[in-house]
Amino acid sequence: MVVSGLVTGCFMDLNGIASRLSGWLCGEGPMGDIVISCRVRLARNLAGFCFLSKCSEAARTEIEEKLRAIFCEMKVGEEAFYFDVCKAETLEREVLIERQLISRYHAKIDGARGVYVGEDESFAAMVNEEDHIRMQCLRAGLQLEECWAELNRLDNRVEEQVDYAFDEKLGYLTACPTNIGTGIRVSVMLHLPALRMSGEVEKVLRAAKDMNLAVRGMHGEGTEAMGDLYQVSNQVTLGVSEEQIIEEFTNTIVPKIVEYERAAREQFAAKNPAALDDKVGRAVGLLSNARLVSSQEALHLLSHVRMAVNMGRIKNIDMGSINELFLLTQPAHLQYNCGRELDAGHRDALRAKMLRDALGRLN
Amino acid sequence: MVVSGLVTGCFMDLNGIASRLSGWLCGEGPMGDIVISCRVRLARNLAGFCFLSKCSEAARTEIEEKLRAIFCEMKVGEEAFYFDVCKAETLEREVLIERQLISRYHAKIDGARGVYVGEDESFAAMVNEEDHIRMQCLRAGLQLEECWAELNRLDNRVEEQVDYAFDEKLGYLTACPTNIGTGIRVSVMLHLPALRMSGEVEKVLRAAKDMNLAVRGMHGEGTEAMGDLYQVSNQVTLGVSEEQIIEEFTNTIVPKIVEYERAAREQFAAKNPAALDDKVGRAVGLLSNARLVSSQEALHLLSHVRMAVNMGRIKNIDMGSINELFLLTQPAHLQYNCGRELDAGHRDALRAKMLRDALGRLN
Repeated sequence: MVVSGLVTGCFMDLNGIASRLSGWLCGEGPMGDIVISCRVRLARNLAGFCFLSKCSEAARTEIEEKLRAIFCEMKVGEEAFYFDVCKAETLEREVLIERQLISRYHAKIDGARGVYVGEDESFAAMVNEEDHIRMQCLRAGLQLEECWAELNRLDNRVEEQVDYAFDEKLGYLTACPTNIGTGIRVSVMLHLPALRMSGEVEKVLRAAKDMNLAVRGMHGEGTEAMGDLYQVSNQVTLGVSEEQIIEEFTNTIVPKIVEYERAAREQFAAKNPAALDDKVGRAVGLLSNARLVSSQEALHLLSHVRMAVNMGRIKNIDMGSINELFLLTQPAHLQYNCGRELDAGHRDALRAKMLRDALGRLN
Repeated sequence: MVVSGLVTGCFMDLNGIASRLSGWLCGEGPMGDIVISCRVRLARNLAGFCFLSKCSEAARTEIEEKLRAIFCEMKVGEEAFYFDVCKAETLEREVLIERQLISRYHAKIDGARGVYVGEDESFAAMVNEEDHIRMQCLRAGLQLEECWAELNRLDNRVEEQVDYAFDEKLGYLTACPTNIGTGIRVSVMLHLPALRMSGEVEKVLRAAKDMNLAVRGMHGEGTEAMGDLYQVSNQVTLGVSEEQIIEEFTNTIVPKIVEYERAAREQFAAKNPAALDDKVGRAVGLLSNARLVSSQEALHLLSHVRMAVNMGRIKNIDMGSINELFLLTQPAHLQYNCGRELDAGHRDALRAKMLRDALGRLN
């Protein structure tokens, strides 16, 4: 496969990341049994330029070149790289989406744009998505304060080189009013299989919505909760400080949901251990014997195995390997890593083989 | 468990048969890949007695005692025995039903009645079911001529001792007019998984019905086709000889259906081997890993494994072992062999354990 969009001077290409685990998916980190990952994101725009919806092609290109140069000089780790999304193949864009480095919207639009990816993918900055800059820090487990400290530091480094569009009263100006103010979005990816099985997940998520939180599937807005993965994020960005938002997530919102999920797991194990072992046994049996597995089924079955590993009911596999399968069995990763596009039937066969190879020894 | 209903002088009790395979389930016999078993049954009534629907309690008892004595003297093999269904526990009756030695109707009604079971269960005679005598011979695979020869021989031995109700014009008189004439019913138990998967089974069975054949599930009238097992039997008994019926089954009807099933299997293997291996892999994966399995699911999954063994896609298990699981995982056998009644949850757990123990090594 030809890797396109690679900028000279950045020594990493997509090939390098697509075959391995993102740093923030290692399976460690506080509350890592339930909190897969956490993320803080900032939206920023350059002063003196229009928002992208009103921006000329020339100005868009000027913004992209300016920001590309700034990010490439920042060197967020030795293996950081900038990727020209505009020139990328469809499959490369899909890989970046599956790794949560770019949004579906960023992949789809036209015009000069790119993404800067820090070493280990713990930092990423989309250039010319909805705003001129969308920067994120990701960590495994619940480490929002660490994410925010790092993101704040990198944001300051960018701000040393450019003027951000800022209003004394409104704060940072953003293309969409929902991001105005701090421009911050905090989100956590939660694994809630027991709450889903007990039917309580709807109740918990309704309570989250009542607290002005958004709840989405693993790929953000408009996606379903596959593999029992739920993304919970803040919606209000105006009139509340970054620190307040992070504090509330870290000390109240996330621990509460984690507590509910743990209670649901304990109750399941205490009240119906046979049904629990049956669910897990069936997942292992199918993953290690099926010959055709869709990505949706893979996520669904891996979700049960992940829970069982966390509950100590399966011992001979580590969390990182399960998280790796969550990522590498997704359609674009599967095709990219085998070097060519595959139709659905061949994807399902290759995915099944990968799962059998990884989980066959659990029998 | 107390074994009731055992008659002195018959050296076999229910305990003995319930834990092992019926002779006709050995998995061998002509066309044994698709024809599980074949059966010929005769309906007979004693002259000088009313049909059972009009019979007094005393006459019913007299018939039972008379026939019991005759059968017990016949000694169809060293290990033959007579079982008093009237005195039997519910679970014992259910075991006899699952082994096809008595009918659900025979288990349920009141009054003096019993069943004589030949060695290996290849011969059985219900006393006081719908008719005074319902005799059957069973064999593995397609051996209807052998069944009929043996049954005819045994029928003649009974007739040496009693007068059958017989009319020159109508033939043997039976309680239900559908059995009148020869009183013969011929049936074959067919395993048709590929025809069911391809959706053609309905067409084949409709054609069978057009030929005046009845098609039923594994436990006869009114039962569903579980585990892709279909019982095909004749309906006409008047104006056609026993030999004609047997000849038609042996040389036309059964070979035709077998040919259709084999073609469907070959086509499946040629056109979509991945889907076939997936189906079989999933069945093996679930059977060797699930912790709770219903009897219906067990039959369904075992059906796929049975087909795969016959197609040479699974090598390290023999047909007899699969047929044994078909029988021993059924609810009454499961409970009888563990020595006590179990609720559905415990049955499902015990069934799953039996299946895991038997099939775990296939992984």
